[in-house]
Amino acid sequence: MSKVRVESFTISLDGFGAGPGQDLNNPLGVGGTALHAWAMTTRTFQRAVFGKEEGTTAGIDEAYAARGFANVGAWIMGRNMFGPVRGPWPDESWRGWWGEDPVYHAPVFVLTSHSRAPLVMAGGTTFHFVTTGIVAALEQAREAAQGRDVRIGGGVNVIQQYLRARLIDELHIAVSPVLLGAGERLFDGVDLPALGYACTRHESSPNATHVLLTRLDPP
Amino acid sequence: MSKVRVESFTISLDGFGAGPGQDLNNPLGVGGTALHAWAMTTRTFQRAVFGKEEGTTAGIDEAYAARGFANVGAWIMGRNMFGPVRGPWPDESWRGWWGEDPVYHAPVFVLTSHSRAPLVMAGGTTFHFVTTGIVAALEQAREAAQGRDVRIGGGVNVIQQYLRARLIDELHIAVSPVLLGAGERLFDGVDLPALGYACTRHESSPNATHVLLTRLDPP
Repeated sequence: MSKVRVESFTISLDGFGAGPGQDLNNPLGVGGTALHAWAMTTRTFQRAVFGKEEGTTAGIDEAYAARGFANVGAWIMGRNMFGPVRGPWPDESWRGWWGEDPVYHAPVFVLTSHSRAPLVMAGGTTFHFVTTGIVAALEQAREAAQGRDVRIGGGVNVIQQYLRARLIDELHIAVSPVLLGAGERLFDGVDLPALGYACTRHESSPNATHVLLTRLDPP
Repeated sequence: MSKVRVESFTISLDGFGAGPGQDLNNPLGVGGTALHAWAMTTRTFQRAVFGKEEGTTAGIDEAYAARGFANVGAWIMGRNMFGPVRGPWPDESWRGWWGEDPVYHAPVFVLTSHSRAPLVMAGGTTFHFVTTGIVAALEQAREAAQGRDVRIGGGVNVIQQYLRARLIDELHIAVSPVLLGAGERLFDGVDLPALGYACTRHESSPNATHVLLTRLDPP
């Protein structure tokens, strides 16, 4: 059975998955970039995001970054992760944060209240805009993944919705040694033990603490 | 200048400093004991809490446990950390969780709305009950500490009050790889960067991630 996974999702010491004030200049919110310093040290992220053969090929930061892309057949993300446009799409000019050849190389299902035609990008990425809710999006993603796993990209609100619906099998969360002070807290209003989750792995690099949270059966 | 410190204060991955439902059988709330597994491995805690020459004398868990008692001349704690009795003291029978020779071996200032005569215990611990607020308690603790540091023991609400008043110089927080799901969140409603705090150290054992949060001057 293919899994539904959250990977490389990073929170601050004070629990925030993104800083406040997301906009075109701050796609992760103010201060949000510092969250991801651990990932920026890795070959996987340097290659995926910047197309550069830089960063380390060893160590647990790289190991977690790499596992995040392994066996992923489709992605799901919230509309605010796709871009800063709010409300109805004024036109089709916004094509994501990631250039013409996005990092996904797979079908990406974008949750939105506003319909839009599929957006075919280079490198195997197609953005599909789903207006029928998280369960329908997951069904479509599972089918598109053809037996491989579905990765929930984020943001915080989307992960919370899938957690509350008990639809996520495993989460890799990185805790960065930074304080954000405000923003969206990943675990606000989410009682993980009551939903059946436990911490099943815990290890640290100098840059972050990595944990796996696994939904135990029966939930 | 003596410092005001929080030491060995442990939170869960989802941010809780104590579990829900504190009572006589669950002084740290339900599930709260699992938070402190890292401390229980250490010689310092085994000796201080149980009077046993057990636990490790090496490693960073022990190093953090030991620094928590070093150069501490007085303690401050909330009334709920002192015991499960709520409201006016019915009598003087409650003498703390820690037996007749408590772990503090120093003056302890207990914040409460209900006055009570000082309680002199064995081993140098005297509990003073302060009804005039956190600033007055800190003044009394500083004086009693005679140049050594003041340690804020907890709980969550007391630490939050001192943080918001910018009266804490440094916090050692341990993040345990457990999920509590409910309880009191240490950083709820506390914007640490706005209050002048930054993470200045970050390291992990297999049992916990240890961080130091330091108030930078000027705040």
